[in-house]
Amino acid sequence: MTIPADTAPGARIVVPVALEGRAYDIQIGRHQLCEAARLIAAMAPGAKVAVVTDERVAALHAPAFEACLQQEGIGFTRITVPPGEATKSYAQFIALCDALLAAKIERDDIVIALGGGVVGDLTGFAAAVLRRGVRFIQIPTTLLAQVDSSVGGKTGINSSHGKNLIGAFHQPALVIADTALLDTLSEREFKAGYAEVVKYGLIDDPAFFDWCEVNWSRIIAGGPERDHAVAVACKAKAAIVARDEREEGDRALLNLGHTFAHALERLTHYDSARLVHGEAVAIGLALAFRFSQRLGLCSGQDATRVSRHLDAVGLPSTLQQVPGGAGTAQEIVAAMGQDKKVRRGVLTFILARGIGQSFIAHGVAAEEVTAFVEAELATNGQAR
Amino acid sequence: MTIPADTAPGARIVVPVALEGRAYDIQIGRHQLCEAARLIAAMAPGAKVAVVTDERVAALHAPAFEACLQQEGIGFTRITVPPGEATKSYAQFIALCDALLAAKIERDDIVIALGGGVVGDLTGFAAAVLRRGVRFIQIPTTLLAQVDSSVGGKTGINSSHGKNLIGAFHQPALVIADTALLDTLSEREFKAGYAEVVKYGLIDDPAFFDWCEVNWSRIIAGGPERDHAVAVACKAKAAIVARDEREEGDRALLNLGHTFAHALERLTHYDSARLVHGEAVAIGLALAFRFSQRLGLCSGQDATRVSRHLDAVGLPSTLQQVPGGAGTAQEIVAAMGQDKKVRRGVLTFILARGIGQSFIAHGVAAEEVTAFVEAELATNGQAR
Ligand SMILES: NC(=O)c1ccc[n+]([C@@H]2O[C@H](COP(=O)([O-])OP(=O)(O)OC[C@H]3O[C@@H](n4cnc5c(N)ncnc54)[C@H](O)[C@@H]3O)[C@@H](O)[C@H]2O)c1
Ligand SMILES: NC(=O)c1ccc[n+]([C@@H]2O[C@H](COP(=O)([O-])OP(=O)(O)OC[C@H]3O[C@@H](n4cnc5c(N)ncnc54)[C@H](O)[C@@H]3O)[C@@H](O)[C@H]2O)c1
Repeated sequence: MTIPADTAPGARIVVPVALEGRAYDIQIGRHQLCEAARLIAAMAPGAKVAVVTDERVAALHAPAFEACLQQEGIGFTRITVPPGEATKSYAQFIALCDALLAAKIERDDIVIALGGGVVGDLTGFAAAVLRRGVRFIQIPTTLLAQVDSSVGGKTGINSSHGKNLIGAFHQPALVIADTALLDTLSEREFKAGYAEVVKYGLIDDPAFFDWCEVNWSRIIAGGPERDHAVAVACKAKAAIVARDEREEGDRALLNLGHTFAHALERLTHYDSARLVHGEAVAIGLALAFRFSQRLGLCSGQDATRVSRHLDAVGLPSTLQQVPGGAGTAQEIVAAMGQDKKVRRGVLTFILARGIGQSFIAHGVAAEEVTAFVEAELATNGQAR
Repeated sequence: MTIPADTAPGARIVVPVALEGRAYDIQIGRHQLCEAARLIAAMAPGAKVAVVTDERVAALHAPAFEACLQQEGIGFTRITVPPGEATKSYAQFIALCDALLAAKIERDDIVIALGGGVVGDLTGFAAAVLRRGVRFIQIPTTLLAQVDSSVGGKTGINSSHGKNLIGAFHQPALVIADTALLDTLSEREFKAGYAEVVKYGLIDDPAFFDWCEVNWSRIIAGGPERDHAVAVACKAKAAIVARDEREEGDRALLNLGHTFAHALERLTHYDSARLVHGEAVAIGLALAFRFSQRLGLCSGQDATRVSRHLDAVGLPSTLQQVPGGAGTAQEIVAAMGQDKKVRRGVLTFILARGIGQSFIAHGVAAEEVTAFVEAELATNGQAR
């Protein structure tokens, strides 16, 4: 399979997100930080900028971006938060809001998230509620953030009751996915993000899944395949978000694998030493396909193909691979029941009739899920 | 002046708020709590309800409302916050979000604010961000909340940097203004709310100001004049909000008197023992007219008429009436500069060419304001 012409080396791919009144572009390519600064200067002449980042990204990439801002004569403040999921907390949210107010960020100014999904979700939420909403730009620096969290306007923080329970829909004014920033990402974080890439193939694009099976190592290595993969993912997400911004229908398809994933993250206390989001999603994807198989919806062949690909990439695909253990079937299902995708106590699942044939299944009985998880725990996912 | 037929005793006045896709009604009348419960049952069959209220209102009115909910078979949880402006804090926001999550309020459930503007603003903000937005109903129990804060969807909390700096636009699904609930309001709080009533006359309805001069004591006493005043205020606010939901233009007119008022509240540390919001607004209205007079925009006659009416009602109209003093002119203007209505450091003011002839004045020089406030402090507002 060849890469389309628009991802030839050096090219920049623009993916528009068609939202009435709040349309914006995702720009994908290598070395886009100064291009980002140029776009900001054009979009908001005279505006102040707050660059929110985490300590790790600050050390690696903030100076380069700030040099670009300086070149454009844009005044900026840097606000740094600790890295890690624990940063999506009430306490960090308050500290960030107060730091933005102290920096005198006003309604016409711009708040920029330079970091992974944690920085993006926290910063987007703060931007959504600061003065009831200020402009917000995403410069995602992880693969996961480039293909998923920076697109679509979901922002938020966690509560002790669960992940992302406090948040807002707040669309960015621009997303710059500089794929060269990913060169410094750890292999583990890169692969975790890759789980979200492959998800788009599993949802409704079997040809893209085929392409991933062949090209995954080149995506990791960098180069045009990486840009192509990010672009395909962004296009897919942008299309779903444009159809259903507030997740009242279709958008729930993006949660393929996530009901399991969120339960696993909850049970491992969001401890990234044990499990990062993308790893939880990888297990969730494999489980969603095996659960679909068990329900007689999907062939064993397709379910096995999903797990095999995740295994090949070096991603986990079974509950046994959760370091320290995931818990009992009852604990896992109870942790799912906490999910915000539950309406009036009924479980909603994304299931699949095959690779690229996912659908939203309402009213899945908790006992079905429990029985499946029990079988998984007993057989190490070999019950397929 | 006579009261229109639609406010005859016993009648219920319905004011529609025409917002594309999120239209809702304000229902005004005496003894509407069971009507509210009936509407909720019809709007959301099977939904759970969280009733958020403050300790004072809980003691006075929550049992009556909950009896109505019970009669309709609606399951509910009561969540009580302390009364007072200090409740619009990060800490109370977090406590409320967690209480709503503990009550398992999901996306299809309903959060109700039963209280004054403090309960409404805090609860509305929590409803806006809980699970990225749950349905929200306002049952305002102060005059200020019935004529102002419950209508229009502005919600939020305070930061140490200023009032309402953290918040969201989140329209209620319904507003029930039960004017009988105001019978238990202290005279001081009632009069404070009255400042916002009279504001609508001053903005663009001189005939309503005339009517208020004649009927104010009957509004306080209760009866059809009260319902009429609430309805006129709600209609006026609904019309402005429908034109400009996000305060990008016209809606700023509603801030008549508020740039001064917010500065005074800030300088008195939001201490309601010294100054409540409506009292600050009363002083702000008088100042806005005297400032307009000083700028040669408005006749001294009109400015005097405004102050005289506030005096007659028993509301403050000068800086000298701020208990403990308002501070120096420099302090007052500096406190204004913090206001979120400042864009890129330029002061925006609502000024008036006369009663019912207010307009938005951009780029008012800080020195002009300082000189005016100095004169006010020197002359006790007698410089008119
Ligand atoms: N808003 C959404 O729609 C959405 C969608 C999916 C996931 N999410 C959220 O995203 C979060 C996970 O995002 P994530 O995986 O990006 O995690 P993350 O932001 O914690 O980043 C992972 C780690 O990589 C480091 N890092 C970031 N960029 C780097 C770079 N270029 N080089 C080296 N290190 C770098 C970070 O410091 C961090 O330690 C979760 O909180 C999840 O809930 C949100
Ligand atoms: N959202 C908006 O558009 C908007 C507009 C204007 C004002 N506000 C906000 O509203 C707040 C002020 O509202 P408020 O004046 O209603 O204050 P409040 O909510 O503090 O109520 C004032 C006092 O009256 C008590 N109370 C309430 N109802 C009562 C009743 N029926 N009987 C007896 N006591 C009762 C309360 O317990 C409180 O002690 C401020 O925070 C202000 O910023 C918001």
